[in-house]
Amino acid sequence: MTNANENSESIKKIRDLIKDIEYAMLTTIDSEGKLHSRPMATNREVEFNGDVWFFTYASSLKVNEINNRHEVNVSYAAPNKNSYVSLTGTAEIIRDKDKLKELWQPQLKAWFPKELDEPDIGLLKVTVEKAEYWDSPASLVANTIGLVKAIATGKSATNMGEHEKVELK
Amino acid sequence: MTNANENSESIKKIRDLIKDIEYAMLTTIDSEGKLHSRPMATNREVEFNGDVWFFTYASSLKVNEINNRHEVNVSYAAPNKNSYVSLTGTAEIIRDKDKLKELWQPQLKAWFPKELDEPDIGLLKVTVEKAEYWDSPASLVANTIGLVKAIATGKSATNMGEHEKVELK
Repeated sequence: MTNANENSESIKKIRDLIKDIEYAMLTTIDSEGKLHSRPMATNREVEFNGDVWFFTYASSLKVNEINNRHEVNVSYAAPNKNSYVSLTGTAEIIRDKDKLKELWQPQLKAWFPKELDEPDIGLLKVTVEKAEYWDSPASLVANTIGLVKAIATGKSATNMGEHEKVELK
Repeated sequence: MTNANENSESIKKIRDLIKDIEYAMLTTIDSEGKLHSRPMATNREVEFNGDVWFFTYASSLKVNEINNRHEVNVSYAAPNKNSYVSLTGTAEIIRDKDKLKELWQPQLKAWFPKELDEPDIGLLKVTVEKAEYWDSPASLVANTIGLVKAIATGKSATNMGEHEKVELK
């Protein structure tokens, strides 16, 4: 059973759980089918709306892996709050200058000394299909939020609009 | 270039990074090729030797996923220390009673109220092929330790013995 209030409450819950977490672990599949993860600086000022974005070098190994296999997992751990989040989805590289400018934050200079003038800069857009969270890991039960995009429209939605159906399982 | 001192130092480094972390995120591949992760209580008293072990219910969804696709990633996040670890490997379910007894810890009772009398209890053994760690995520460079098992012996080694070759890449 799903209703709009439950959905917005659940999205808000995920947003609250991840908003203070500086680094997520991004897991990708390599050419041999092995799973690798690495910490990625999160855009904490960007609110959770079903997609998450990370700055990256477009020629990096992980982008290469993602171009071959789109499936990724993004996990967030906040041990001090006993909260853990798993986002299941697909990733793609986006090099749109306006989007780069919109999401840029000064602290990213640590990785990109040339800032937005870096010729190899890009964004990883993760389209999230399922979000699971544990706010008490002693519980065996995950809270699951399914984000079912409106595939019929062919639109890769970037926010929770009317073309999206949110399922609470 | 590799030598025994460098290897033991690197293994010690990984062990130090993960020993205080209560929950790792275990990522598995589902039947549709999607990546899922969930927090798993770590055996902090077990030292890192190339394999990691987790208690599980043998009939759980993740065991089902692992039986179909052995590839997993185990990630550890210690935000307060700015350290992150990625272990790439394969997982299998082990139901050996002696091993269960050896690794059992009282705090696991939160998940297994019947303790070792739980009929569905099992261990996930993750055989680690590659370990990567970041002790300063502002660095773009991962430290990688390759654990190349002695495949010729057909032995699934459980500790760093003479049949194993450790590569520092």
